Amino acid sequence: MEKDLSALDSALDSMGVDGFLIDAASSDSDQLYLSGFDAPDAFTTLYADGVHLLVSSLEYGRAKKESDAETVTRTAEYNFHEKVSEYGWKEAEMRILAEFLADRGVESVAVPERFPVGTADGLRDVGVSVSPEETDVITEIRATKTDEEIEHVRVAQKANEASMQAAEDLLSSATVEDGILYHDGEVLTSERVKEEIEVTLLRHGAALDETIVACGVDAADPHNRGSGPLKADEAIIIDIFPRDKASKYHADMTRTFVKGDPSDEMRARYNLTHEAFDAALEAVEPGATGTEVHDAVCDVYENAGYETLRSDSNTETGFIHSTGHGIGLDVHELPKVSPAGGELKPGHVITIEPGLYDPEVGGVRIEDLVVVTEDGYENLTDYPIEFVLD
Amino acid sequence: MEKDLSALDSALDSMGVDGFLIDAASSDSDQLYLSGFDAPDAFTTLYADGVHLLVSSLEYGRAKKESDAETVTRTAEYNFHEKVSEYGWKEAEMRILAEFLADRGVESVAVPERFPVGTADGLRDVGVSVSPEETDVITEIRATKTDEEIEHVRVAQKANEASMQAAEDLLSSATVEDGILYHDGEVLTSERVKEEIEVTLLRHGAALDETIVACGVDAADPHNRGSGPLKADEAIIIDIFPRDKASKYHADMTRTFVKGDPSDEMRARYNLTHEAFDAALEAVEPGATGTEVHDAVCDVYENAGYETLRSDSNTETGFIHSTGHGIGLDVHELPKVSPAGGELKPGHVITIEPGLYDPEVGGVRIEDLVVVTEDGYENLTDYPIEFVLD
Repeated sequence: MEKDLSALDSALDSMGVDGFLIDAASSDSDQLYLSGFDAPDAFTTLYADGVHLLVSSLEYGRAKKESDAETVTRTAEYNFHEKVSEYGWKEAEMRILAEFLADRGVESVAVPERFPVGTADGLRDVGVSVSPEETDVITEIRATKTDEEIEHVRVAQKANEASMQAAEDLLSSATVEDGILYHDGEVLTSERVKEEIEVTLLRHGAALDETIVACGVDAADPHNRGSGPLKADEAIIIDIFPRDKASKYHADMTRTFVKGDPSDEMRARYNLTHEAFDAALEAVEPGATGTEVHDAVCDVYENAGYETLRSDSNTETGFIHSTGHGIGLDVHELPKVSPAGGELKPGHVITIEPGLYDPEVGGVRIEDLVVVTEDGYENLTDYPIEFVLD
Repeated sequence: MEKDLSALDSALDSMGVDGFLIDAASSDSDQLYLSGFDAPDAFTTLYADGVHLLVSSLEYGRAKKESDAETVTRTAEYNFHEKVSEYGWKEAEMRILAEFLADRGVESVAVPERFPVGTADGLRDVGVSVSPEETDVITEIRATKTDEEIEHVRVAQKANEASMQAAEDLLSSATVEDGILYHDGEVLTSERVKEEIEVTLLRHGAALDETIVACGVDAADPHNRGSGPLKADEAIIIDIFPRDKASKYHADMTRTFVKGDPSDEMRARYNLTHEAFDAALEAVEPGATGTEVHDAVCDVYENAGYETLRSDSNTETGFIHSTGHGIGLDVHELPKVSPAGGELKPGHVITIEPGLYDPEVGGVRIEDLVVVTEDGYENLTDYPIEFVLD
């Protein structure tokens, strides 16, 4: 797969505009994707007969070296300092942006819906037509990964596997006293396991903002990050979604462990979730929809008598989230693997993560990361699926 | 100091609008500050007779518990799912937002300049007046920290000191062979020191996106993060700006070390920078301007015959950046300690970080973090200023 911007061309054609404009820092993944330039402060990317950047003098050298742009212009070329003296910062910036567009024959632009209204209004004031593009076309394009992007995700998942192993090792080597896990003579907490995960990720070139190590009733809420002492005989969900620091691509994996003896109900839920996980993977192929993959999971759970959001949209127990999501520069991106999921295509990278939740029992979730291929899928995850740790 | 939103009230009065509206995730520091709610996806904060949040059902419980808002409303209360079926996602969101505003008697709003144009245009389409607020009033308000915020910065700087110590210890214990530093039998690289810094920060509840460990000619470019083997007898700049994970407040500190023997010129530059640093601190007091503090540094450097951007705006060597910046939820925020710096006030938290750069010699920078007090300043940094490591 190669990066393919033809959908952007079509969107601009159908909107009848001259170009596409982004004003954002590279923390905006569409900006990073289109510009290929990683910068902490907002800069401007114009797509019109190729990619063109407008950056501060501070970033000029690096942008020329590192970005994917055909041309890089610095604001100083438009007499930035003189304009600031004459018009003040904001109007100076707007005049320069308008000149930059005019120099490329651009009189009308589509912009992302989250493009800053200050810039949009400023451009409109000087006669440039600015129209929000409503289909999130760049985000759509990003859903299909190039071979290089898939490699980035694979590298991130390798780091993730190492951190999951570090977490599992902590649980495995823990001792149990009065139902509480201990490690090196201290209570083993969710926080301690998260720290080990983070440190391991750092040693492998990856980082994360948050991670989930949730035990017992905490794990019954899929959005609870977990805290406090970990307990024996209860399910511990570990969900790690790090970002490779060099490439900026994410990985994602979840395992559920019990230190000691799970109840029969918990064991049944684990086995059923493993079955739902296998059914979902079985359904992944190009041409299938995200909805079909999600339905495969709902079928398994509902046939076994558990609620899902499909069988009861108000249920607070059972399978109460989507089966998965696309992943790449963002942890959550297209395609959807949910009731709203469209057609899966080769190059889509998605998570498969069924789970069952009930505050009375706890939570269980199993998650791998796969790429849709020409004839099915390739699992980018190489980590055993095991439940009970002795 | 208490949180004081009176400047926001004045701004809204002078614009003649009913309220202030933010549509952003908490990665936007103005959103985090006004709402007191930390959430990864965009949500809506209205300031009009108090702070009011509009959030998804997913975030409702947490927003009620954790945010600073007087009221929290979930989109489901406005029949979100029915509206999505009838109008599609985007129009449904807009109708709900308009109803939310109407319920509070709000017909006109000021918004940040980076408010999303899609939302602005959508609100305008249904008759709500939307005006970008041009003075960055929330950012201005954030410049003055409450006692609690100062405590957050202090805690972050404590973690920072521990990580600086870890880095210094690595350099101190290194051996030298053919001018290259070695540690535990391996070449000591910039990357290795950064890893140690990050791991130490994690152990202290802090994290960072980037850090600078730059040696020799790398250190002569203040924006170079540094890479590769560290060398003896050359200046190594270590600049660390972590974020406390619990409070989200940042710290910042820089030290410059030489392992071995610096040249006489390098030693002179270090001592002069220490002198400039002291002169800047001497100038910090309420009523002084950021410009005056910056000028104190330029005076020291220029009197010793070095260029500054004040003496030559095109110079690429000498003192080629600002003296400092405000710090808080953002690494770089108001007030400015630069040629554009306004009046310093009690509660302002600023860095003081003069430096000298020349590719022929290397770079040197010394940075502490201080809070402006009623009668001067308090240094929030407790780390020795030393140059030569044996």
